[in-house]
This record gives sequence, C-alpha cells and structure tokens, in this order.
Amino acid sequence: MPPKPLDYESINENVKKAQYAVRGELYLRATELQKEGKKIIFTNVGNPHALGQKPLTFPRQVVALCQAPFLLDDPNVGLLFPADAIARAKQYLSITSGGLGAYSDSRGIPGVRKEVAEFIQRRDGYPRYISSPYSLFFLTLHCVNLFKRVLSLVSNLLDKVINYFILYFSDPELIYLTDGASKAVMQTLNTIIKGEGDGIMVPVPQYPLYSATIALLGGTLVPYYLEETANWGLDTNELRKSITEGRRKGLNVKAMVIINPGNPTGQCLSAENLREVLQFCYDENLVLLGDEVYQTNIYQDERPFISSKKVLMDIGPPLSKEVQLVSFHSVSKGFLGECGQRGGYFEMTNIPPETVDEIYKVASISLSPNVPAQIFMGLMVNPPKPGDISYDQFFRESKGILESLRRRARIMTDGFNSCRNVVCNFTEGAMYSFPQVRLPPKALEAAKQAGKVADVFYCLKLLEATGISTVPGSGFGQKDGVFHLRTTILPAEEEMPAIMDSFKKFNDEFMEQYEDHRGYSRL
Amino acid sequence: MPPKPLDYESINENVKKAQYAVRGELYLRATELQKEGKKIIFTNVGNPHALGQKPLTFPRQVVALCQAPFLLDDPNVGLLFPADAIARAKQYLSITSGGLGAYSDSRGIPGVRKEVAEFIQRRDGYPRYISSPYSLFFLTLHCVNLFKRVLSLVSNLLDKVINYFILYFSDPELIYLTDGASKAVMQTLNTIIKGEGDGIMVPVPQYPLYSATIALLGGTLVPYYLEETANWGLDTNELRKSITEGRRKGLNVKAMVIINPGNPTGQCLSAENLREVLQFCYDENLVLLGDEVYQTNIYQDERPFISSKKVLMDIGPPLSKEVQLVSFHSVSKGFLGECGQRGGYFEMTNIPPETVDEIYKVASISLSPNVPAQIFMGLMVNPPKPGDISYDQFFRESKGILESLRRRARIMTDGFNSCRNVVCNFTEGAMYSFPQVRLPPKALEAAKQAGKVADVFYCLKLLEATGISTVPGSGFGQKDGVFHLRTTILPAEEEMPAIMDSFKKFNDEFMEQYEDHRGYSRL
Repeated sequence: MPPKPLDYESINENVKKAQYAVRGELYLRATELQKEGKKIIFTNVGNPHALGQKPLTFPRQVVALCQAPFLLDDPNVGLLFPADAIARAKQYLSITSGGLGAYSDSRGIPGVRKEVAEFIQRRDGYPRYISSPYSLFFLTLHCVNLFKRVLSLVSNLLDKVINYFILYFSDPELIYLTDGASKAVMQTLNTIIKGEGDGIMVPVPQYPLYSATIALLGGTLVPYYLEETANWGLDTNELRKSITEGRRKGLNVKAMVIINPGNPTGQCLSAENLREVLQFCYDENLVLLGDEVYQTNIYQDERPFISSKKVLMDIGPPLSKEVQLVSFHSVSKGFLGECGQRGGYFEMTNIPPETVDEIYKVASISLSPNVPAQIFMGLMVNPPKPGDISYDQFFRESKGILESLRRRARIMTDGFNSCRNVVCNFTEGAMYSFPQVRLPPKALEAAKQAGKVADVFYCLKLLEATGISTVPGSGFGQKDGVFHLRTTILPAEEEMPAIMDSFKKFNDEFMEQYEDHRGYSRL
Repeated sequence: MPPKPLDYESINENVKKAQYAVRGELYLRATELQKEGKKIIFTNVGNPHALGQKPLTFPRQVVALCQAPFLLDDPNVGLLFPADAIARAKQYLSITSGGLGAYSDSRGIPGVRKEVAEFIQRRDGYPRYISSPYSLFFLTLHCVNLFKRVLSLVSNLLDKVINYFILYFSDPELIYLTDGASKAVMQTLNTIIKGEGDGIMVPVPQYPLYSATIALLGGTLVPYYLEETANWGLDTNELRKSITEGRRKGLNVKAMVIINPGNPTGQCLSAENLREVLQFCYDENLVLLGDEVYQTNIYQDERPFISSKKVLMDIGPPLSKEVQLVSFHSVSKGFLGECGQRGGYFEMTNIPPETVDEIYKVASISLSPNVPAQIFMGLMVNPPKPGDISYDQFFRESKGILESLRRRARIMTDGFNSCRNVVCNFTEGAMYSFPQVRLPPKALEAAKQAGKVADVFYCLKLLEATGISTVPGSGFGQKDGVFHLRTTILPAEEEMPAIMDSFKKFNDEFMEQYEDHRGYSRL
C-alpha cells in the first residue's frame, strides 16, 4: 500500500527539518516527569506568569471591561474598577467597530497603531511625524499636510508632493500588529525568502525561532558568531567573514538578524555597535531585522537600550533613507509579560509601498490579529501617566518587577560562576543566563555512549536530579566543542537561592563523577 | 543600484501570487469611501459583531473574570457577576498555570482540548473515548487503561498494547487549539504541500483562504466545480473528472477540501454525499480537510449538519481506520461570532503519531495560541447547562441570534430573486448569499473598457451607488462566463429590507442602463 499524504514519509521535508529546542526533547521529558508527579521548574521558556509573576492590575482592568462592555452600564462598576480604567475601556471600545469580538483591520486597529507610533517617537526622541535636521522646512511641510485635509480636492496631488519630501519618523501605516512577535518574524522572513539560495545572517548563539523559520521556509541560515570572551559582543570582522563565507557557497545573502538585548546571550548592543551594523547592511545591501522584544528588560546602567531605528535616523542620509529595517516588539516581555495574550508589532522602515501592500495582503489571509492583545499593546506603549488614578499602582508594580529581575539576573550569574567548570557572562538584559559548562572528556564519552549531544546529556541529568528544565546550548548554536545551557532568570526571587544551590550541588557532583585529568571542553 | 531584498521585484513570488479577494480591491475602495465620510455596509466578511451582533453575556463574563482574577477576591464581585460565571472562571484559572498571561502548551490547554473532545463525542453520538461495535471488549480495554495508571511500572508496555487495539473516537491529544481556523488550515496545508507538483482539490466557488494559502505554499489548486443548478451540490462524477484532470497535468493530488456548510455557496452536505466523498478519498488516497466552521449556522430542517468525522466512523472499517481526516472549527461563527478573539481548533483522525509530533513541533515555533480565545472555545463547546443560573439567558441570546439569521437568510435570498437578471440559491447554512448576476453584453463591454473583470465592475458600481461592500464572484472562482457576488447575511434584521431595496434599485437601474437585445451572461 502506498504511503498516505500525511504519513511521515510523505510530508513537507522543510517541516521535518525545522528544529525548535525551546520546546524540544528536554521540554517533552520535563512534561513527562511532571505528569509522574515530579516538581518541575520550567526555566526553558521566557514565560513569567507561569512562574508566578502577577499581571499588572491596570491593563487587566481595562481589558476585562472591554471583554464585558455591559459592565460599563452597571451602576456598581465603580465598586470594582477605577475611573481611569473605565474611561480607557470606553475609549478603546469607541475605536473598535464591534468591540473585541469583531475582526479588526488585518494590520491592527488604526488607533492602537497610532499609539505605537507615538511611543516609538517618544522612545527615540524624535518629534511626532517629523524627522529631519532641517526642522523649520519640515514643519512647514507638516502645516501643508494639515491644510491638505481641508482641501480634499487637491489632496492627491499634495500627497505626492509631501511624500516626496517628508521623512516620517514613525508612521502608523507602517506598523502592523500581530499575534505575537514570533508571527511577525515569520511573516517578514516569508516575504524575503524565495528558496534555499537565499541566505539570512543570524547570530550564533541565536533564538531558534530564526533557524526553525528559515528551515520551514526552505531558506539557508548564514551564521555569524558572537564573541563569548567579549561578553557576547558583535564584531564587524566576524560579520564580513560570515557574509563572505555565505556568498562563497553561492548564497544570495538578503537579510541580517540582530537580537538586542540578546537571546539567549543577554548582551546589550551599544550605539556604536549598531552604527557599524547599519553601515554593514548598507554596504552589503541587507535588510536588517531588529528583534527588540526585550527592550525594557535592562539590568545595568552602562548600556541602556537604544533602538536600531533611532541609530539609523541619527546617522542621517543616505543610510536613513536607504537601509531597509524591520523592527519587532511584543507584549510578552518587559514588565507586562503577557505571553498568553499573543500580541506584537513590527515596524517597517524604508520598505517600498508595493511591498507593504503585499505584506498587508498576506496578513489579510488570516483576517486579523487577536483584538484583546492589540488592546494590551496599546496599554503597554501608552500606560497611565503621572496624575492618573492608577499611575502610582502601575508604576509600583512595574518597577517592582524590573528591580526584582535585576536582582535575579545578578543572583543567577553569580550562582553559575560559583560552580565548578561553569563560566557565565552577566545578564545585561533580556530574560536569560547562558552559562558555558566545561565538560570533562569522560562526560563527553558518557554522552556519546548514551547517544546524546553532550549538553543534552548534561541538561537531562540536571532535569532528572533537580527538576530544573533548561535548554541545551546546542539548541541555539555554539562553537564546536563548547557547551552551554540556557535558563530564564524568571523563577520567583525567594526561590532563586535554593534553585542555584540545587544547581550547584548537581553540577559539582556531576563534575566530580566525570573528573578527568585530561582537562575539559573549552574554547 | 541593484534592487534591495524587500523591493517588490526581489520578494517571494508566492507572496505575490496569493490573492485574497475578501479584503481585496472592493474592500480597499470601501475603506477609502468610508474615510471620505460615506456610510458603508461591510458585507464582505463574516464579522457579525462589526454589524451590531451583541456578544453572548456568559462567555464574556467568564473571560472578563479570567482577565481580572483579582476581582474574584473582591467582596463586591457578586454584584456584577453571577455565581456560575465566577465558578467557571475559577475552574479555568485552575487549569491554566499562570492564567491568561502565560503561554499554554503549543497545542492548547489540555483541559480545554478535553472539553472539545467531549463536545465532538456528544455531537456525533459516540461514547467518550471508546468507539467500536465490540463495545464489551473495548470496555474491558478501557478498564485496563484505568488500572494501568496504578501500575506505573508496567505502564509503557500496557500503553503499547492498548494503543494497538483501541480506537479513540475523539482524543484530546489529537485536537490542537489555534489562533482561529484559518491558521489551522494554513498549518495543515503547510504540512502536506512540498511544492508545485502537489495538488489540493478545492471546491469552486471556494473560500479564498484555500487558493491564497496554496499559492503562498507553492502548491497547485485542483478545482472541482459545485453544481449551481443543483443548489451547489457536490457531484462525485465531477470529483473524478477533477482528479483525472489534475493527474493528467502531472500533479500528485494529495488532499481534498470540503466546506460544509458551504462558503460562499451556503449549501449543506447530506450524509450520503459525505459517504461518497469519504469513499472517494479512500479510493484515491487523499487527505480530507473538512472545513466545518459554520456547523451551527443552519437555516433549514431537511439537512441538519453532520460531521465528516461521524460519517467516517459510521461507515466503519476499513475506511474509519484508514482515511486521513483533518476537521476545523472556530469561535468566530455560529451564535458566538467572536471573530476578534481568534480561536479555533483542528482535530486529526488517522494521522500517524510521527506526523502529529511534527505538527506539534511547528506549532511550538510560535509558542502558543492566544489563551483567552482558548477559554472561549471551552465555553463554546461546553456552554451553561439547564439548571445553571446563566442557562436561560444563554439559551435566549443564542436562540435569538440563530432565529434572526434564519429569517435574514430568507429575506436576502428572496430579495435577490426579485431582482432583474439575478438568481440565487437559498442559503441553507453558513453566513452568505451568493447570487448569480446575469450581465448583458453591453455591461461586459463597459467592464472591459474600464479594465475590470465584469463582476468587479458591477460590485464597484454597487458600492459607489449604495455603500454595500460585497465580494465579486471572481474572488471565489466560478465557471467561465457567469458572474456572482458574495454578501453576508449579517446586517441587522431591521435594516435588511432597506438594504435589499437599495440593492434592487441599483441592480434594476444597472440592468436598464446596459439593456441589450443580445441577452445576458449565463450558464
């Protein structure tokens, strides 16, 4: 009998090729152990609420009211909800035709996209809608733009004139809301990749969303290595080496991904570094994909987050008008941590309108991103302001989360560095630690005998011994012969010391067991 | 200067090829007109809440409480929420580790998937977890299954024995929750399609999700035509003709789509018809994709909805154990109409475990479907029961919506049939009318001069004259030389007569204007 179309041997090879270690062998084993009654600490995925982080009160109040709009007519609503949450819910309901139960425009609700645009403008220090060193000239153009609305008869002509001159800094029409940043990345890569001849430069170690999506779309990943000894720094010589190697293989290298702050590596890129990256993309005709979902998760003061968009605009022409940039953000990270709501956005810079139209069309096929998460996005980029009833509570809650994460990043890095044969760069940002585990030859041999990659072997033993569910470094990519693991810094702060003790006890016993006079794996 | 990677000429050709008329030229023009201040009646997409349908109270109460769990500790909560909504919210929060803000398992929350499985079993009349003519034998196996849990030492061995014999009717492990049924269809087709040599049989007229997704994935659509003169019936001779034609072109025809009730065509398939389809899939080694998102939207009593799964199980072996079937459902349709929440599921039947694992892996790449919509799915398949506090209200609200839709289906079909040169089959189910508009040669020539497909020309004129935004038949596919349009039956019932009058006035004037002694387009 011939195989059926959904039998394993018949299905799409690209589906089989895609690997996603964050929910791979380790996660599946952890789920099994949990079913058997073992207590598991899931540090495999950046999922703060699953580890006890409480949702912020104000955004949840607003969304609950949007879900139950009939409460707004109830005389008792003021007993359960503050006035500013009620006002905000009414405002969102006034801009969604049909409330949360109606498809929005496939790009997202226009009013929320405007809130995002304004957030980007505030964040990056550019005035609304206008960006240029010649501000008087552009201010005039801006007035023309306002005047245009009155003169609808000549609006099409004026439109063309304005668009010819003005450089919008952040335009809601170029911001699309999505069901989470992962979906945004997948849609962007789908637009770029035609087939296996197309190369995408990705940092190694990388978040496996990239390798998995590139495999799924039948493209080719071109790795560039981050420098562990320089706190996972990004070196332009390495970029040049990487693209040369990609082209030597006959690839048409089309795009470059940066993850800032880094996942799994936790580093924050400097403005200088970003300038070099943008210059490189300009010189080599690459689209830059800026994964900036951890932009609020910063745990040191030396290198605050700076967006690729801002650096690009600061550089000015010709780069600011030429480099194609797609930036990603999410409601799942930061202090909101609303992973389960699935909300994200991407912003397009220097992408021609015909391509924007194509991206809109593809977004239309699945009708619209989920609407409640669009509201969360609005609330994230446009939170309560000083003077609002809910401001103090919002500020206290969000500050509390970020400060605790900062302390946890420190406890974790220090904990790893106190372990035998483990070294770990400080988690400057994002939500992860990525320690290197230096394995003795005896351990490598034991892993080989068990038919496992060495870091998978180590992580499985760790899981069985302690219930800590991590992701082996091989799931993110690493240089040959060195081994890592990724863990989130998300377990509750009060549990953190016990978790690190438990890790240390396991690790040091493991190293004792496989002690070997021949040294250990390292760079 | 060479084109950049996101310039139009560089991007993925499959992205350009995909067409999605539901939000195509007509929709874009309607949006423009709306911006200019014209009142638009958006009947282009099945989006009930956008046209004034109120959300059901109970599901919204439960989800609002899940979004704002702190309300559950508030002594005043009982003033705004009934006790059964409070209890249900607590129950959902108890099965989501971390509430709505945490990623769920990539397949959806296990407890909700169990609710879906139980719904399918109730709907299709098979007992929970067990399905076989030899029920005593299988009941014994079921007891073994329970006993197995105690004997964890031998569980792996027993697992294998049980899985060898038992045929689960609906198994939560084979039900995956998704961000809407569209995403479920896209993921399934992505698993099946390797390249342009792969053919997917799709009814014509079809919902363009199918043509767009197949184009996006680089596969080939193999059309089979529904018979308009037989109320859009599905004829197996046509299926054989279609597959023969596909194979003659060298295609590997792998799957067949049915949409039941039909979109855009509104017909309901009989059990006999479904048996023929399943036999055809068995004979020709095709996966059947059963798009059943309109299963609650039935407006006649002669042909109630019957699922492909039930018919397959009723047929019995060998078909019931061999035919690969994927069925789709959604929270966006029925009486819930929660489009903006983006919730759906797919159920896999006779798909081997290795393929199920691959589908799970791909689902993991985007982490999890949005969690609030998973709760809506739970509430849809497991609504309040007689005796519950909220039962009467839930029953009244949902019955009111369905009865009104039934009346609107009738008003609309009758309205179309009263127009000059328009004929329309009765909308037996789903949410659409799909009238044939017989255009005189003069109108065809005018369309040609305007550079438009004839039905696009007609629909644009309709839009400009009346504000009614429809989708031209060419967006769904139709036989050469005949023309249709699709409209939803969703405008508010009280507005329906005025809308149909406005349509009739436009149409009859249009036909007057292009009157032609040479007759009109028709089959």
